[in-house]
Amino acid sequence: MNLLEMSETAKKELLDAELKRKAEYVAKGLKLDMSRGKPSKEQLDLSDGLFMTLDPANGYVGKQDYRNYGITDGIPEIKSLFASLAGVDEDEIIVAYNASLNLMYDSVQRAMQFGVSGCKPWNEQGKIKWICPVPGYDRHFAVTELFGIEMINVDMLPDGPDMDKVEELIKDPAVKGMWNVPKYSNPTGVVYSDEVVERLAKMRPAAPDFRLMWDNAYMVHALYGQEKQANIMELAKKYGNEDMIYGFGSTSKITYAGAGVAFMYSSKKNIAELKKLMNIQSIGPDKMSQLAHFRFLKSVDGIYALMEKHAAILRPKFESVVDILEEELGGSGIAKWTRPTGGYFISVDLYPGTAKRTVELAREMGVVFTGAGATYPYKKDPADSNLRIAPSLPPIDELVEATHIFAVAAKIAYLEKA
Amino acid sequence: MNLLEMSETAKKELLDAELKRKAEYVAKGLKLDMSRGKPSKEQLDLSDGLFMTLDPANGYVGKQDYRNYGITDGIPEIKSLFASLAGVDEDEIIVAYNASLNLMYDSVQRAMQFGVSGCKPWNEQGKIKWICPVPGYDRHFAVTELFGIEMINVDMLPDGPDMDKVEELIKDPAVKGMWNVPKYSNPTGVVYSDEVVERLAKMRPAAPDFRLMWDNAYMVHALYGQEKQANIMELAKKYGNEDMIYGFGSTSKITYAGAGVAFMYSSKKNIAELKKLMNIQSIGPDKMSQLAHFRFLKSVDGIYALMEKHAAILRPKFESVVDILEEELGGSGIAKWTRPTGGYFISVDLYPGTAKRTVELAREMGVVFTGAGATYPYKKDPADSNLRIAPSLPPIDELVEATHIFAVAAKIAYLEKA
Repeated sequence: MNLLEMSETAKKELLDAELKRKAEYVAKGLKLDMSRGKPSKEQLDLSDGLFMTLDPANGYVGKQDYRNYGITDGIPEIKSLFASLAGVDEDEIIVAYNASLNLMYDSVQRAMQFGVSGCKPWNEQGKIKWICPVPGYDRHFAVTELFGIEMINVDMLPDGPDMDKVEELIKDPAVKGMWNVPKYSNPTGVVYSDEVVERLAKMRPAAPDFRLMWDNAYMVHALYGQEKQANIMELAKKYGNEDMIYGFGSTSKITYAGAGVAFMYSSKKNIAELKKLMNIQSIGPDKMSQLAHFRFLKSVDGIYALMEKHAAILRPKFESVVDILEEELGGSGIAKWTRPTGGYFISVDLYPGTAKRTVELAREMGVVFTGAGATYPYKKDPADSNLRIAPSLPPIDELVEATHIFAVAAKIAYLEKA
Repeated sequence: MNLLEMSETAKKELLDAELKRKAEYVAKGLKLDMSRGKPSKEQLDLSDGLFMTLDPANGYVGKQDYRNYGITDGIPEIKSLFASLAGVDEDEIIVAYNASLNLMYDSVQRAMQFGVSGCKPWNEQGKIKWICPVPGYDRHFAVTELFGIEMINVDMLPDGPDMDKVEELIKDPAVKGMWNVPKYSNPTGVVYSDEVVERLAKMRPAAPDFRLMWDNAYMVHALYGQEKQANIMELAKKYGNEDMIYGFGSTSKITYAGAGVAFMYSSKKNIAELKKLMNIQSIGPDKMSQLAHFRFLKSVDGIYALMEKHAAILRPKFESVVDILEEELGGSGIAKWTRPTGGYFISVDLYPGTAKRTVELAREMGVVFTGAGATYPYKKDPADSNLRIAPSLPPIDELVEATHIFAVAAKIAYLEKA
């Protein structure tokens, strides 16, 4: 039933019914957390034995004894593996850190301090601006906000960011970069179409030091089998544009969250320059963690096989959430949601002006959702509409309960207002 | 025999003899590397089993499941261990990264970009200067050089840096910091005396945003049993000066070089501020490596016991080098060296103007030493005199040969000139 078209009486009756359901949930005294995209224990257990590969009996010697100093950019074995995964050459990749956020932050900080492409440091270029497809990833926005970079919202469409808008914005030389999660975007689950990837790859921004931040966090995180996507670096090379690309990825949601191996890829020229700076910042990455990951994952096929096991755990969770949303809110007119084929989130657009109140009501029923606005720069969702559901962590029974609660909250929030 | 007082004939004879020795070494076609302070395989083997502590049978749960996201500043178990080691409270320490250089670099970069103690960013304060005890650690100097910070040499005396000079320099508000390796200093092996530590702890630099970089890299790396040293944080607190201190340490030369666990300590206020910034830069440190280290090292006593095993391997190496220097160059008047009681280096001051040539001659005989000047800011040793010998990596027979070659080179370099 469409709530938007309901009579006042029907609305009143429904509100009473939903408030009764709410009171029942409150009485249960639940404490559920749906706020972050964390893997579940069952998923983490899939990597049992990761560090057992470092049994002294196996030795630690590859190009050198990996227990000792040396190597700025990652052990050759893991560089080769991730280069294959990202579809780049081995001199176009650096493997470092335990998660990719650090590589992204450092890339922005280096550009602020030292500049890129021979241009002046961004610190010395006055107001810097940045393109942010919305809704997007809160930690991306926190980085650009910290550096005082002005963030400009661009709508995420079903096939990627609104490219007409993007192509207009890059005419401003103060626009220096753009955040992207090109596959199973956080939180919409959008997979950029090959056409969008190509339009991005061939852009000619007015700023010669523009950087396309390509956070491939979910590149292999498919729910229904691996899906192909045009390779940004290949296309950028076709247009002589590969210096513009900063690609990122990690095993945070392949092996252990925050105890994985991260990588960054770009043009040979950029990687060579980055290595010079990283060699002053760091004596090199944790090669033991890299060796363990290489021995455990073995190959791109090894990664795909592991991701299929993750998918088997995640699929029923995603499907439960979507089923309940359909059951509770289908045809209601007050909510639209995504049916992602990968990634870690389900994004829901609620009736404008009700997202904050929905989170508040859900909290009263004992369920924590990511705060309204978190998916927007400056935590400001202009429509107060988007919320993000993270189905991975809770067991299915909790997830089912939490999603019902979400729906009750969304309905009450609308009916209170209407 | 004192070369400085030799007759011309005697000098000629000695030069001929040393050139003959040189020719013999050249003929051997040696290839020895004495350039970096790396632990030997035998030392690395002491940590066999480090990662076996992560057997799935042991579980991964402490304050939380450490395989998952969460915790910005290190798992509580390892924070507690390193806090005890550094003599600080648990809210005065952050455990992060696989080596401490990254923490030091980031500290300087953050001060450049955001400022510290509520002062303007160093980037916006014009010329910034820095006190550098010399000879010192090349990687420290590389960091300050990269940021365009003007480095000022201060002599390292037997009990620490020349404090009269330091106390004079800090009257300049442009002087924002000072590098220190307070125990078994790199490369001199100097242990700052308690008096020097206290004079540093109570300094009142003109710059309110001055930072004393306290790189405690070798805090437990004793050759002849653990030695006490006044605690900089305790003394700084006594003088209400603890915001001035940035302490650093790591297990790089306790467990694995570059695959250890690093930490930073400072005032509660500084640590709270740092955590806010680090929470934007990083999703948190590699908690699995931290868990492995905690389970393997267990306690401060566990660390001391392991360091005694390192010392048993390193002692004969250090003593061989010093014995051969004594045999070859004792009383020669052209060389002075340290007899360190810990750390990773032996520092040798050669006859002024002969260090570069000594390295060149040694290279011709097949031995690579750290380049002359490397121990000074801008790689410029004004006297061209100091060289650093790193005895840890090579087996004893190679070390003996390399040290003889060093002496031959030093004598030829002097005699060519004299």
